[in-house]
Amino acid sequence: MIKVGIVGGTGYTGVELLRILSKHTHVEIVVVTSRTDAGVNVSTIYPNLRRTINLVFSPPDIEILCQCDVVFFATPNGTAMQMAPALLAKGVKVIDLSADFRLKNVAVWEQWYEPIHACPELVASAVYGLPEYHREAIANAQLVACPGCYPTAVQLGFLPLLELGLIDTHGLIADVKSGVSGAGRKAELATLMSEAGESFKAYSVHGHRHLPEIQQGLELMAQQPVELTFVPHLTPMIRGIHATLYGRLTQDISLTEVYRVYQQRYGQELFVDVLNIGAHADTRNVRGSNYCQIALHQPQGKNTLVVLSVIDNLVKGASGQAVQAMNIMCGFAEDEGLQALALYP
Amino acid sequence: MIKVGIVGGTGYTGVELLRILSKHTHVEIVVVTSRTDAGVNVSTIYPNLRRTINLVFSPPDIEILCQCDVVFFATPNGTAMQMAPALLAKGVKVIDLSADFRLKNVAVWEQWYEPIHACPELVASAVYGLPEYHREAIANAQLVACPGCYPTAVQLGFLPLLELGLIDTHGLIADVKSGVSGAGRKAELATLMSEAGESFKAYSVHGHRHLPEIQQGLELMAQQPVELTFVPHLTPMIRGIHATLYGRLTQDISLTEVYRVYQQRYGQELFVDVLNIGAHADTRNVRGSNYCQIALHQPQGKNTLVVLSVIDNLVKGASGQAVQAMNIMCGFAEDEGLQALALYP
Amino acid sequence: MIKVGIVGGTGYTGVELLRILSKHTHVEIVVVTSRTDAGVNVSTIYPNLRRTINLVFSPPDIEILCQCDVVFFATPNGTAMQMAPALLAKGVKVIDLSADFRLKNVAVWEQWYEPIHACPELVASAVYGLPEYHREAIANAQLVACPGCYPTAVQLGFLPLLELGLIDTHGLIADVKSGVSGAGRKAELATLMSEAGESFKAYSVHGHRHLPEIQQGLELMAQQPVELTFVPHLTPMIRGIHATLYGRLTQDISLTEVYRVYQQRYGQELFVDVLNIGAHADTRNVRGSNYCQIALHQPQGKNTLVVLSVIDNLVKGASGQAVQAMNIMCGFAEDEGLQALALYP
Amino acid sequence: MIKVGIVGGTGYTGVELLRILSKHTHVEIVVVTSRTDAGVNVSTIYPNLRRTINLVFSPPDIEILCQCDVVFFATPNGTAMQMAPALLAKGVKVIDLSADFRLKNVAVWEQWYEPIHACPELVASAVYGLPEYHREAIANAQLVACPGCYPTAVQLGFLPLLELGLIDTHGLIADVKSGVSGAGRKAELATLMSEAGESFKAYSVHGHRHLPEIQQGLELMAQQPVELTFVPHLTPMIRGIHATLYGRLTQDISLTEVYRVYQQRYGQELFVDVLNIGAHADTRNVRGSNYCQIALHQPQGKNTLVVLSVIDNLVKGASGQAVQAMNIMCGFAEDEGLQALALYP
Repeated sequence: MIKVGIVGGTGYTGVELLRILSKHTHVEIVVVTSRTDAGVNVSTIYPNLRRTINLVFSPPDIEILCQCDVVFFATPNGTAMQMAPALLAKGVKVIDLSADFRLKNVAVWEQWYEPIHACPELVASAVYGLPEYHREAIANAQLVACPGCYPTAVQLGFLPLLELGLIDTHGLIADVKSGVSGAGRKAELATLMSEAGESFKAYSVHGHRHLPEIQQGLELMAQQPVELTFVPHLTPMIRGIHATLYGRLTQDISLTEVYRVYQQRYGQELFVDVLNIGAHADTRNVRGSNYCQIALHQPQGKNTLVVLSVIDNLVKGASGQAVQAMNIMCGFAEDEGLQALALYP
Repeated sequence: MIKVGIVGGTGYTGVELLRILSKHTHVEIVVVTSRTDAGVNVSTIYPNLRRTINLVFSPPDIEILCQCDVVFFATPNGTAMQMAPALLAKGVKVIDLSADFRLKNVAVWEQWYEPIHACPELVASAVYGLPEYHREAIANAQLVACPGCYPTAVQLGFLPLLELGLIDTHGLIADVKSGVSGAGRKAELATLMSEAGESFKAYSVHGHRHLPEIQQGLELMAQQPVELTFVPHLTPMIRGIHATLYGRLTQDISLTEVYRVYQQRYGQELFVDVLNIGAHADTRNVRGSNYCQIALHQPQGKNTLVVLSVIDNLVKGASGQAVQAMNIMCGFAEDEGLQALALYP
Repeated sequence: MIKVGIVGGTGYTGVELLRILSKHTHVEIVVVTSRTDAGVNVSTIYPNLRRTINLVFSPPDIEILCQCDVVFFATPNGTAMQMAPALLAKGVKVIDLSADFRLKNVAVWEQWYEPIHACPELVASAVYGLPEYHREAIANAQLVACPGCYPTAVQLGFLPLLELGLIDTHGLIADVKSGVSGAGRKAELATLMSEAGESFKAYSVHGHRHLPEIQQGLELMAQQPVELTFVPHLTPMIRGIHATLYGRLTQDISLTEVYRVYQQRYGQELFVDVLNIGAHADTRNVRGSNYCQIALHQPQGKNTLVVLSVIDNLVKGASGQAVQAMNIMCGFAEDEGLQALALYP
Repeated sequence: MIKVGIVGGTGYTGVELLRILSKHTHVEIVVVTSRTDAGVNVSTIYPNLRRTINLVFSPPDIEILCQCDVVFFATPNGTAMQMAPALLAKGVKVIDLSADFRLKNVAVWEQWYEPIHACPELVASAVYGLPEYHREAIANAQLVACPGCYPTAVQLGFLPLLELGLIDTHGLIADVKSGVSGAGRKAELATLMSEAGESFKAYSVHGHRHLPEIQQGLELMAQQPVELTFVPHLTPMIRGIHATLYGRLTQDISLTEVYRVYQQRYGQELFVDVLNIGAHADTRNVRGSNYCQIALHQPQGKNTLVVLSVIDNLVKGASGQAVQAMNIMCGFAEDEGLQALALYP
């Protein structure tokens, strides 16, 4: 039984961590922080946790957090980098769901996020928490930077092709659609149901913060520059990401062979599931689960390959993947607490 | 480990049984039947079950079903009554999610359902599977008739008042709203997203089949005739039932006292949760879980009491409650397989 | 061609006024005010009005508004009462979509809204803008208080019964469901799509501001006290109100006779449409239109009558009804600008 | 006043034609056919048309249809080609919303649709009803083939670039998202709200029937072969298409210059509206209207251009565009009956 703390428990990734961890057999949640809701019962704000989570939100306190074995940051960008150094110094394992430690190039981070990174010296030691590609490093990490939701779906879809050099690194396109929970639990006009319901739009086409993160991951694998166009869209549903990925094959290879590449790469993976040739991926089939489902198509046999990759943005795209990382770091079964199947319909 | 069969596995209550039972520690699912999809992999139709359910739909076969310890019927009305006698004769426990054995008065059943009941002699021995009110009988039952979704929400809300005679049995009103999954997985115009989405309507106001079932339950408790107006509505969401119940208090009793009555009645119940005075019940807080959440109001201190009762129609209103009954019948922990928290947001 | 001003043009009732009035043959919109968005093009915030509305939001300025023939207030409660006196003094017709002038009893208004009403002396002269019941007074009014959305649906449903004394004035129940646009265009957690989507809940069951307004209208008609329980609900759709109304018949009267009462009352009305016996009302059939559709039921022939009344909360429940009032006040055809049919599907 | 007939009035494009044409000042709808609903009042099936459409569905009868000036086919593919010859022979103008006359190459049509085209000799004379590119031909046509919904959004977005040779004709990508009404009013599992709600998926990635139609239009403009990957997706909303189009610029041209190209091309068009640079297109802003809104982006200044093109699939993507064609054919104002603004929110 390890002691776990959650910093920033009032957002959607925070409540999702609570939902998952409350049923984890090796975890005791000892502290959940919230500045705005300090003193309030967790289950008052989240009645779905009644009868299970009997905690009160407390203001963030380093001393108390230092008594945890693992601390999750489910905070807006810019918070974890303030508090992580003290926790790491005390030997606490830190799993950050925000973007603070995702980019290896601090200058790029400062260009897309905040003017000054608070602890650039820690960035190098942070392990990017995509288990399917960094499992061993995660196992030995003290600080894990969990991938963003879009980067998870896009990388799991593209990486097997780049790993084997099967697609042209120029002209990659990631047309990605997200449910509104990706915008977080913030009072904003754009995600009101009257605005986002029954409508569909692209946003941040000029440049979204997840672009440099995706690019970093693809280039690390390709070992060369990658030219990617990434267009995120807001979809009138709550949970789910559907990435439609386009790349041009560099060699004459059949869809069946491509399928075998994915099967080989992910066949042993607990949470990445390659659908049969001809199938389509549907976000409802992973809703509430930690799975990524991938489908492969080669329309009209042309050399443009289409990869469909779906996840639940709050589970495999955030809190589920964070728990998966924790399981690896702590030597638990990798799917402990994560066996839930998708809620369909 | 008991052997379980599911008859009618291609509907929403069938797939929900599969989702729940696949994670049940004492259950092995040995057969899932479907006439229309016999020979097809279960996970082809339900990709959310991939990697977990490795079964093929088979045509219903009494011989094979007789080898089960428990057989669930997730079939349209009229099927269970054809097959149950043979299974019961072999000592199999039968849990029927359809309406075949819910009404004690066979004549009333034949008026609302089919002209002729196939085995009226079994009706008396069937136990109505509402654990909060018939736990002991369920424990000893061989045949359980699971309550309908509307009747579950309405009865859990009204019964504590009728048990103590606190409301007038005349003029009860149940204004109930259901998500579209309650209509089942059937190709019909009325539940197309283009028809049911972004719209709200009442239906079957002249008389819905769940009316006699609710009335039977209320009258059994009240020990006198009950005059109930029941109006079901179709709500543009997938899962969830919200019952708004109105009754007139027969005595001068405060809302606090009413709250205590519910606390006393349900305080020990694992799956019925009475919210604090002033709170409202929200279907999202029980989505995907086996909970019923109840809130109590007495607007403007008048003598009309308002009870809000929410469930997930496919879990506490169907498959979850059926598994709860199985747990009781088989001596398992009552919440085995049912600990999942609601998926929020 | 009359000159029209709109105060508070950035909310949903404001944009709806713009949509309707921009196609009105006798209206020129000369000013649209907004404190927060002053200086911004209207069509920048509302791209659906591009190519049609070529105006810039201006700060509210009494002098400019006084040059209008008609001024609409699509403002939060408490604004119109500040500005109306000056406009009325200049002979401008004022149509207020907020609640400032709806309640005749100022003390009740101050209890439910703000501590002090700014111009109680005007309340008596304000005409309640429900054309089906106050057409003549509206025609002669200088100040019209448009009914709230819930009150419109509930009163149109209940009033014919109270007019003839057909139902008991005790124990009336209005169980009403609204789409989320009723909450306005405000950045709030509760109406985020992640919160309000795929969920259903009652709210303000202890007492909603529309209760005294409804009660005032019912009592005016009944000429005696009315005991009403009003429970509003939030429905996961954008537009639409569905009122399910329950009353007990005071005499032995058939549903056919009740139907004739409604036909007689509304047969000549342009915007109230009584559906055939047996039909159900569906909010999608009035979406975007100024119609109220009403259906009548008498379940199982008992003496509880069920009236279903649906409107689009932003049209007949707000801006459409306001334009209908303007048409009457200005002697235009009552349906000028309001002929649009519901957008289905 | 012209006499208009509608063949196939019970689908979504049929009811949309009725909604639009019922308010058209130069049109009298004299006949609406339906095999399945013959004898039924139109407003019984479509209560949104009550008080406006007073017609009964009749079985299709060539003699009666021949008395019309214009006949619309809102039928499934394969019907118009059976009946059009007789109507054309009598001088009736025929506007076909199905795919029967869209493809100039009959062999390609027979490959994607039905084995044998019933009147291949008429195909050459059919005019493709995209007014922005074939206005003059439409004005002189007797038979118009209305574009499909996807082809409308994609072509309006891509054609200005191909017209001037600004993008590479290889590697064009059209990632397009449609609301569920595009699937029509058919009782099918896939478009049930429980299946299509709260979920997102691609479909027919291997090849959708609109591909050859789009390709034909793009190649006609480019005057050379075009290599296009077209991936349609099903979005959990009722109305709307959002096309995200990707092409590689063939020359060093700024986004501002591209914007000017679109402004020049569409500046005089009544129904195509180019948004300012930096803006995004949102389907809600064209919901219920005949507009196409287009936004242009060049992410990170790379040479991949991103065009966002949104329409309402049932209006500009079907019935609205068909009425636009009729207006042109009959010499009416092109926007007669089509002035409705988008219904927002």
